[in-house]
Amino acid sequence: MTRARRITVLGSTGSVGVSTLDLMAAIEAGGGEPFEVVALTGAGNVRRLAEQARRWRPRVVVTADADRLEELRAAVADLEVEVAAGSDAVVEAAVRPTDLVMAAIVGAAGLRSAWAAAGTGATLALANKESLVCCGPALKARVASSGGRLIPVDSEHSAIFQVFPHDRPETVEKIILTASGGPFRRTPRSAMGAITPEQAVAHPNWSMGAKISVDSATMANKGLEMIEAAYLFDTPSARIDVVVHPESIIHSLVEMIDGSTLAQMGPPDMRTPIACALAWPGRAAWPAPKLDLAALGGLTFEAPDLERFPALALARQALEAGGAAPAVFNAANEAAAFAFLDRRLAFLNIASVVAETLERVTGAGGQFSAEDACRAALQVDAVARGIASDVIAEMAAAA
Amino acid sequence: MTRARRITVLGSTGSVGVSTLDLMAAIEAGGGEPFEVVALTGAGNVRRLAEQARRWRPRVVVTADADRLEELRAAVADLEVEVAAGSDAVVEAAVRPTDLVMAAIVGAAGLRSAWAAAGTGATLALANKESLVCCGPALKARVASSGGRLIPVDSEHSAIFQVFPHDRPETVEKIILTASGGPFRRTPRSAMGAITPEQAVAHPNWSMGAKISVDSATMANKGLEMIEAAYLFDTPSARIDVVVHPESIIHSLVEMIDGSTLAQMGPPDMRTPIACALAWPGRAAWPAPKLDLAALGGLTFEAPDLERFPALALARQALEAGGAAPAVFNAANEAAAFAFLDRRLAFLNIASVVAETLERVTGAGGQFSAEDACRAALQVDAVARGIASDVIAEMAAAA
Repeated sequence: MTRARRITVLGSTGSVGVSTLDLMAAIEAGGGEPFEVVALTGAGNVRRLAEQARRWRPRVVVTADADRLEELRAAVADLEVEVAAGSDAVVEAAVRPTDLVMAAIVGAAGLRSAWAAAGTGATLALANKESLVCCGPALKARVASSGGRLIPVDSEHSAIFQVFPHDRPETVEKIILTASGGPFRRTPRSAMGAITPEQAVAHPNWSMGAKISVDSATMANKGLEMIEAAYLFDTPSARIDVVVHPESIIHSLVEMIDGSTLAQMGPPDMRTPIACALAWPGRAAWPAPKLDLAALGGLTFEAPDLERFPALALARQALEAGGAAPAVFNAANEAAAFAFLDRRLAFLNIASVVAETLERVTGAGGQFSAEDACRAALQVDAVARGIASDVIAEMAAAA
Repeated sequence: MTRARRITVLGSTGSVGVSTLDLMAAIEAGGGEPFEVVALTGAGNVRRLAEQARRWRPRVVVTADADRLEELRAAVADLEVEVAAGSDAVVEAAVRPTDLVMAAIVGAAGLRSAWAAAGTGATLALANKESLVCCGPALKARVASSGGRLIPVDSEHSAIFQVFPHDRPETVEKIILTASGGPFRRTPRSAMGAITPEQAVAHPNWSMGAKISVDSATMANKGLEMIEAAYLFDTPSARIDVVVHPESIIHSLVEMIDGSTLAQMGPPDMRTPIACALAWPGRAAWPAPKLDLAALGGLTFEAPDLERFPALALARQALEAGGAAPAVFNAANEAAAFAFLDRRLAFLNIASVVAETLERVTGAGGQFSAEDACRAALQVDAVARGIASDVIAEMAAAA
């Protein structure tokens, strides 16, 4: 029998975390390699965290919420498991010896623990976008120098990762990210001012959280993905294209210098890139939904409309500015998306907030040194959020 | 400067051979690695062969046509080049020390030289279908034991080759060959009896010779490709699917056990798989036509209709029977296609000839030993052609 593969799941009670553990169970049930869970960390959902600990018997289980230590301790009292709480405990769990860390904590909260895991030499399966957007080059360098490997977990970057010639990056001509186009792909600009949060969160292909759905509706998510792709695959902005592909079957493509274009495809399902990360460079069988092109009948494509979706152009601008600009883009976009969900900001003003915040943040083009990249990114994040709040308030007052 | 890559082109005056030399010139012009031509062989087009010899200065130039030795000798009298003629001379040229042999002689005539090249340890870029269909497993074993590498040159198998996990074949669930569906994709069966050679050779996406166009129209070419794929990638018939994709943009796909499907795409252009073979495992830049999905707008897919295109089912049957059956399929199909082009056979009877010949050839299921596979394949080919001729004559008499 193979030695069990040791896994740590940061953010195990969220959507990606739950899918990860489900997949591990499915892979084991199908006769695949066994897994051994080292650490599980969650936030407020202590009941689910305790259930997961009961199923997987990790060495340590952590809630990020310091006030819930006793609640968690009581829920797993009958298990032989260390229990801890608070954000420092999450970071401590992230650096326990393991083979793979699934970094699935959403938002800036996931940055510290992903950064910590990146220094251990374990494979870092990265579902936390902020880590890459805010300090991508430094994070990548940290993983490389620790002897680890970085594997992206969202569907677009996993697609690129799967067909990218890792030993010969110079043979790549272009990366082509596919975008569903979101729910307003066909909405004329004149009607976009009146878009409500309810309309924005109804995504056609993927079931997602509200904030991510807003990002999909504004295409800011594709802007963030462009930044991530640039860092993950050391590819300049000019060599990254976006094509709208409403069916979300081709998850992204890599065009080679000899005219071949390689792609990864499949029904839209977050578990496929997670399965890829869990077994890479191998593959693990599970009852995956299979691609049936004849049943689909057709796939369609169109160029993105930068007039109606200015977030794409802003992300490219932030990427080209470099330094802290991508982190500012991310923080401003997040503040604006939540303001929109709170009905404090019009849909079309989300991009305006981002543009104005990028404009106002002094030194957004400054470079992070690798050493303090994580701390600096968190500071930039805080500063940019403050400025974005001011911009949002000014826009509300002016309206 | 890199050492020049040594290339031999068997069949240099045919379509693939000409494209190969054109591409080599384009790659060199673009600053890519230089090439050194070891041998060029052609057939009756001595003028073109001589022009190629003048441009590329090979060590030896050969015409397969023994009667044209003096004509070729005169045409290159001013060059320092060995000149030879006849099929043995082609085989002798095929085994000259070189880095890569492009085996681009069409039909059974290309079998001996491809077989010879397979034993030299050079990379064998294989455009000759017959070599694989008639003695695929033996040819593959021969290349492997000589320390060489086999790279397929037609677009479907090159697509599979480019995304296939060569180190982990067990992670493949399925190979999916795409088919244009040919010119009669939408023709009802009732109208197929009256199909003329003129209609059959008008292929929608690729410009090809008449015989190959007929194979595309009957989908026998896809049957042959299924057999080739089975041999090239050690994949049983049950794990090879065919999907009709009229635009011929996705050149084929590989479905992995974890639900990811990998594909190679591009505008239909024979030069792309040739470029891949010339530089593999690297990539060579040339002014390739690029994929523009947004400009294309859409790609469509449908299941193949085995009722209207029985050649597909017959090929699967031959593949499953194994041994000489694929060679019989190939020979009978070729005889029938030429009889159709000669107006001696109705379009729908092409498949009937193949079915009847497969039925009549005794021992079609017998196994070839690796040692005499090439000779045995040529014998089977001759026997099957004889029987197919009888069947065609009987059908003509009965009509």
